[in-house]
Amino acid sequence: MTTLTDSSPNQIRAACEAASQAAPGWAAAPVVQRAALLRALADSLQSAREALVPLADEETHLGTVRLNGELDRTCFQLRGFADQIEAGRAQPVQDDPAVPGAPPAGRPRLTRIAVPVGPVAMFAASNFPFAFSVLGGDTASALAAGCTVVVKAHPGHPLLSRAVFELATAVLPAGVLQMVEGAGIPVGVALVRDPAITAAAFTGSVRGGVALWREANARPRPIPFYGELGSINPVVALPGALAANGAALATQLAGSIAMGCGQFCTSPGVVIVRDDEASQAFVKQLAEALAAANPHAMLNAAIRAGFNAGVARLHGRAGVKSLLALPARETAPGAHLVATDAASFLADEVLREEVFGPSCVIVTVRDAAETLQVLHAVEGTLTVTLWGADEDTADNRELVRAAQAIAGRVLFAGVPTGVAVTAAQQHGGPWPSTTNALTTSVGYAAMERFLRPVALQDAPGWLIAARGQA
Amino acid sequence: MTTLTDSSPNQIRAACEAASQAAPGWAAAPVVQRAALLRALADSLQSAREALVPLADEETHLGTVRLNGELDRTCFQLRGFADQIEAGRAQPVQDDPAVPGAPPAGRPRLTRIAVPVGPVAMFAASNFPFAFSVLGGDTASALAAGCTVVVKAHPGHPLLSRAVFELATAVLPAGVLQMVEGAGIPVGVALVRDPAITAAAFTGSVRGGVALWREANARPRPIPFYGELGSINPVVALPGALAANGAALATQLAGSIAMGCGQFCTSPGVVIVRDDEASQAFVKQLAEALAAANPHAMLNAAIRAGFNAGVARLHGRAGVKSLLALPARETAPGAHLVATDAASFLADEVLREEVFGPSCVIVTVRDAAETLQVLHAVEGTLTVTLWGADEDTADNRELVRAAQAIAGRVLFAGVPTGVAVTAAQQHGGPWPSTTNALTTSVGYAAMERFLRPVALQDAPGWLIAARGQA
Repeated sequence: MTTLTDSSPNQIRAACEAASQAAPGWAAAPVVQRAALLRALADSLQSAREALVPLADEETHLGTVRLNGELDRTCFQLRGFADQIEAGRAQPVQDDPAVPGAPPAGRPRLTRIAVPVGPVAMFAASNFPFAFSVLGGDTASALAAGCTVVVKAHPGHPLLSRAVFELATAVLPAGVLQMVEGAGIPVGVALVRDPAITAAAFTGSVRGGVALWREANARPRPIPFYGELGSINPVVALPGALAANGAALATQLAGSIAMGCGQFCTSPGVVIVRDDEASQAFVKQLAEALAAANPHAMLNAAIRAGFNAGVARLHGRAGVKSLLALPARETAPGAHLVATDAASFLADEVLREEVFGPSCVIVTVRDAAETLQVLHAVEGTLTVTLWGADEDTADNRELVRAAQAIAGRVLFAGVPTGVAVTAAQQHGGPWPSTTNALTTSVGYAAMERFLRPVALQDAPGWLIAARGQA
Repeated sequence: MTTLTDSSPNQIRAACEAASQAAPGWAAAPVVQRAALLRALADSLQSAREALVPLADEETHLGTVRLNGELDRTCFQLRGFADQIEAGRAQPVQDDPAVPGAPPAGRPRLTRIAVPVGPVAMFAASNFPFAFSVLGGDTASALAAGCTVVVKAHPGHPLLSRAVFELATAVLPAGVLQMVEGAGIPVGVALVRDPAITAAAFTGSVRGGVALWREANARPRPIPFYGELGSINPVVALPGALAANGAALATQLAGSIAMGCGQFCTSPGVVIVRDDEASQAFVKQLAEALAAANPHAMLNAAIRAGFNAGVARLHGRAGVKSLLALPARETAPGAHLVATDAASFLADEVLREEVFGPSCVIVTVRDAAETLQVLHAVEGTLTVTLWGADEDTADNRELVRAAQAIAGRVLFAGVPTGVAVTAAQQHGGPWPSTTNALTTSVGYAAMERFLRPVALQDAPGWLIAARGQA
């Protein structure tokens, strides 16, 4: 396996300096030009599919079906951001005309524009070698916003990272995209500390993300750090939905838990059911479907070790019953399912920790009130899924309120894995699922992380005509 | 002088708990109801003007003309937020219809709404006893967004704070607005640490704000901390503007520097001029106009001591020439003006520190390039003012770019003091002027600090109809 050599401090400085030098030109480039280059990146990725997908599979074991789909998604979002900026989304303008007279009613003309923040440090994820790596969503949104980018390649897919980076630098103006490499902590720390860096985007573990977030805050001049960290994504399966459709939902949920060997930030880690017949049948069906799933190898040895430790911890907790503990088969882990009750779940924070991989905790609750307590204990998560909350009842309103309070996305059908790239998407929830719950790392609102509002007061006509592109 | 008794830990906890209990009801209240109550707060403030303004003057020395104007502004913004939320601004909705087919093009229906973050801790400012205190902009924007508020009253105007709080609690539903008191650090720290608090807004010094920001980040579950800290607000006076209009601009600028005894976050602390005749005449006129100004007493002894130390430091720096050092008259300080060159300014960070009060540093530059260097050295500021940059020239484009890079508001006429409350306003700039440059504490976008996006996936009709008010 190819491993990265850590970029030296001088190399990191040089990459950040190059991104800084290129920043004004890229920020000033007309949006039609930026859009054309984003589309050219997508075309270039797509043309290189035959070479890139096998390379990605060799390095990540995610399988060519998934990786082809992920490459499609990566191209789709590059083109989507191009469409968005051509439609004016990177240049929001609010123009308040002057009002004669004394304040507070009287006022000068104020024109609110947005300016790119400057060079962005981007930390690639292990589990999305295309969609959250060198040319993934964070890079696409930063480039679209008019920011240059310094990517820290993920050590899990070094050859793919280099290939995509090479392809990208052939398309983009000099300096706009930079890449540093490093398997250890020092490279990431040096990148976040570099004075030229004005914001950082990260997808990964709570531990790694929080450490870098602290570095960003400890700078002489702190910068925004957008970390997408861990999440347990509760699914609330109400009796009505299970009675009507339990078997199909069990199959769908097992697919979501096992998908990509459970290595998704939106993988459902907790399922809340009632103590009734339909729920018991559903749990049995879920265990059967999970037992039939065929997980592939995990991304790397550290993730595998983390999963093994996580499920071992789960099986050993007080009040926890093991429903499924499949043995590992060569490089692939087996799926795990445990069950507990609300009181145990509320009492034991270990049961609320993310286990990254194909495992899930069933929590049986007695009533609607216990469901709310369980959700409240989760605190922060990317998603909550509510099956069977379609009617406008007081209980369902309470449930929706509780879900909205802890999540950035609330689903009323389907499973949380698979995050659509749209303008309305919100992939970011309360701490610890992200470091800034008011922002998203998927969907077109992701650009807003890299655009800073500026009010122009009594601006000359030429400047307003240039709409902040000056 | 009345002093506050620090609220006890139990009192702080009780205030936060009450705000937490009231939060769901206030978040769910229809916007017409929230708007009506914001207007009722404005009416109530206005009715109490005869009692409140003298009380404010006694405690702050800001004068009844200014304080009457500030009360008007406070009422204006309460009503403005009411208008904004009735127009739908607190409930932005982006509705992306489902698209049939496989991802990435195929997608479920996604509806992006915004939910109030929960109870907000609000730290009142000393220098705006109405507009950034108990019912000021931060409180108004949080209430408008659907959040309950716990105000930490400023010890500089305790009686006014209590009177306004009493008036507000007679209008608002129980628990929606809470107040704690404390002159020392522990009350603020306890408030930011309270588990019920979900966000904090602060207006004050860099030192105090950064300390509380660190507390917000050190929580087990960190919260957003919106701090509006210090700013030196450079004014770039280009030769053309001074040749055409120097005397009038000198008078206007002196008024801005001396206004409120210089105790504004937007007070101009640095003026950049060229080494030519018009600029020399302007500086002379500015000194004369400042000498004729009649500052009133400062807000408190600590601010006064800080000002004395600040100007003493300025006069003593290498490369600095004293132009004006008026003696104090009883309780009021004298105005101060010093001059330096670009090289000294760039070399000495003391010259770039805010001196809160009626003082200003003139920096003479040789050319456009030195102007850019001086602006770049300022790093983060609420405003930059550009006089004489009306033509569309390469130099002016560079200048505007440099100003936008360091400021949240760029003025092309007038002076930076006096911040209009509009939708386009941006009162927030790069660190250290604020802790989050992507947000504003003045103007209607201030609400966005307290609204968290949530994407509803395949939401039932009743929920979309309720637009996040469920």
